[in-house]
Amino acid sequence: MFRLILREEKFFEFFDEAANNILEGAKVLVQMTDEHDSDLQERWKRLEELEHVGDKITHQIIRKLNRTFITPIEREDIHGLAVALDDVMDLIEASAARMSLYKIKRPTEESGKLAQVILKSAEEIVKAVSSLERMDDVMEHCIEINRLENMADDISREAIADLFDKEHDPMDVIKWKEIYETMETTTDRCEDVANIVESVALKST
Amino acid sequence: MFRLILREEKFFEFFDEAANNILEGAKVLVQMTDEHDSDLQERWKRLEELEHVGDKITHQIIRKLNRTFITPIEREDIHGLAVALDDVMDLIEASAARMSLYKIKRPTEESGKLAQVILKSAEEIVKAVSSLERMDDVMEHCIEINRLENMADDISREAIADLFDKEHDPMDVIKWKEIYETMETTTDRCEDVANIVESVALKST
Amino acid sequence: MFRLILREEKFFEFFDEAANNILEGAKVLVQMTDEHDSDLQERWKRLEELEHVGDKITHQIIRKLNRTFITPIEREDIHGLAVALDDVMDLIEASAARMSLYKIKRPTEESGKLAQVILKSAEEIVKAVSSLERMDDVMEHCIEINRLENMADDISREAIADLFDKEHDPMDVIKWKEIYETMETTTDRCEDVANIVESVALKST
Repeated sequence: MFRLILREEKFFEFFDEAANNILEGAKVLVQMTDEHDSDLQERWKRLEELEHVGDKITHQIIRKLNRTFITPIEREDIHGLAVALDDVMDLIEASAARMSLYKIKRPTEESGKLAQVILKSAEEIVKAVSSLERMDDVMEHCIEINRLENMADDISREAIADLFDKEHDPMDVIKWKEIYETMETTTDRCEDVANIVESVALKST
Repeated sequence: MFRLILREEKFFEFFDEAANNILEGAKVLVQMTDEHDSDLQERWKRLEELEHVGDKITHQIIRKLNRTFITPIEREDIHGLAVALDDVMDLIEASAARMSLYKIKRPTEESGKLAQVILKSAEEIVKAVSSLERMDDVMEHCIEINRLENMADDISREAIADLFDKEHDPMDVIKWKEIYETMETTTDRCEDVANIVESVALKST
Repeated sequence: MFRLILREEKFFEFFDEAANNILEGAKVLVQMTDEHDSDLQERWKRLEELEHVGDKITHQIIRKLNRTFITPIEREDIHGLAVALDDVMDLIEASAARMSLYKIKRPTEESGKLAQVILKSAEEIVKAVSSLERMDDVMEHCIEINRLENMADDISREAIADLFDKEHDPMDVIKWKEIYETMETTTDRCEDVANIVESVALKST
């Protein structure tokens, strides 16, 4: 009967949940790139669970959106941000899936660097999203996420160029090239989050 | 003089045409992955024709959209759905092009599985689009398309991991990896169609 | 005090600047595919500079957009066009980066053909964007950009198929495959520009 909620603020809580879920995922990915880490498959299964948690949060946001008449920020931005946060978690899981499925012998130094950049981006996403309700300091976190994406792009390009110089097995070149690209794409999706958050902040000033 | 049509329902007919064109394309792709199929290039040429048919339908929709004042569903959704359907057909053709251009010796079992998933997605697209005008059962078809996309992602990941284990020629690894990825991307584009159809259905409830 | 500009026409000037910056970038890329060209890294550095120029123009457009109340074309189209032009320049730089980082011995004929198509697309972008203010001849340039994208797709597909036939070093196959794909993606981004320009033109008729 009263399913239509007139004005709903709970969206910010959901975004916080999704961002913290990403942060937890990024921490697991960092563990996978530690050469003393023992079980890639175990970590990957954990990331699959976190991905499902992310899916549920996304669906809750979209269901609530369809029952809400007046939203605190524009409807299309709520939808866009929910999808963008979901995409980040999906790409973290996809990076882990490749490390596990391709049975890599030991993580490379570069994969560790990229995982660290993803972790830092996740920390900035948590801050950007949590500052969205109060609209303070939003921009500086978005700028930092953009900087981190550029950094990941440079690391990934150099890492792939190095594969051609130093790696003699073409199979390993193909495997690592794709792992680096998937990790770099993860930071592209973080940048998508930052761009939406930034545009929401700009509209409200 | 009377080029401006006030309210136009013909859009649903065009969407049905585009969806059935995709279905025909998916059937040709399934044939290409049958190991007893004789002529990859012939099939590919057929898919190029179907791609051109798809292009024409897309242009007709966009032309009509620009002459229509009141649309049965939101303008941006009509445009988005036309482009998304076009993209599915393009990716089916792109998958076939790679199989033909890379002169694969015999289709793999996994390429057959992926083509079947694409065929099932195409069948669901036909149903989802045809139920859009009456707005009944739309959601169940969209959910099924999402499930099929997840399935294609799993098949493709496993198939690529298997290439590294079982395939000894790096050239064949590179070829098949790209064919699997292109087929998997086809189901991503099917999911884009489902997402637009779903959002149209949600807006109208 | 008077930061809010009521109606701002300067957007067209910025778009012209961004388009001419792309054209300059495309010329440098053509030089890199000349087999008598001496210094890939020098050319790449130049393209990094042009990419930064592009970034600045994009930021200026978005900053101005946020301070402008009435825009000559729809706000989302201004934003979309700025981002699309930025993406073209990024992809030109990304193509050059790969040629330089992968230390290619000599440019292939096909990379020269693709660079020429990118150059022609850039020339059409300059014309399309400059005709946007007066809204004359916009469509023919957009159609030409679409035609050039199809051409690049064909060249790139054939070039990659040729690698499998003629190239014996898998490392070189992987390198060139990615260079061709990045160049082809550049023309996809040119098509995105054309699609936005086309839709702006259609809305205004």
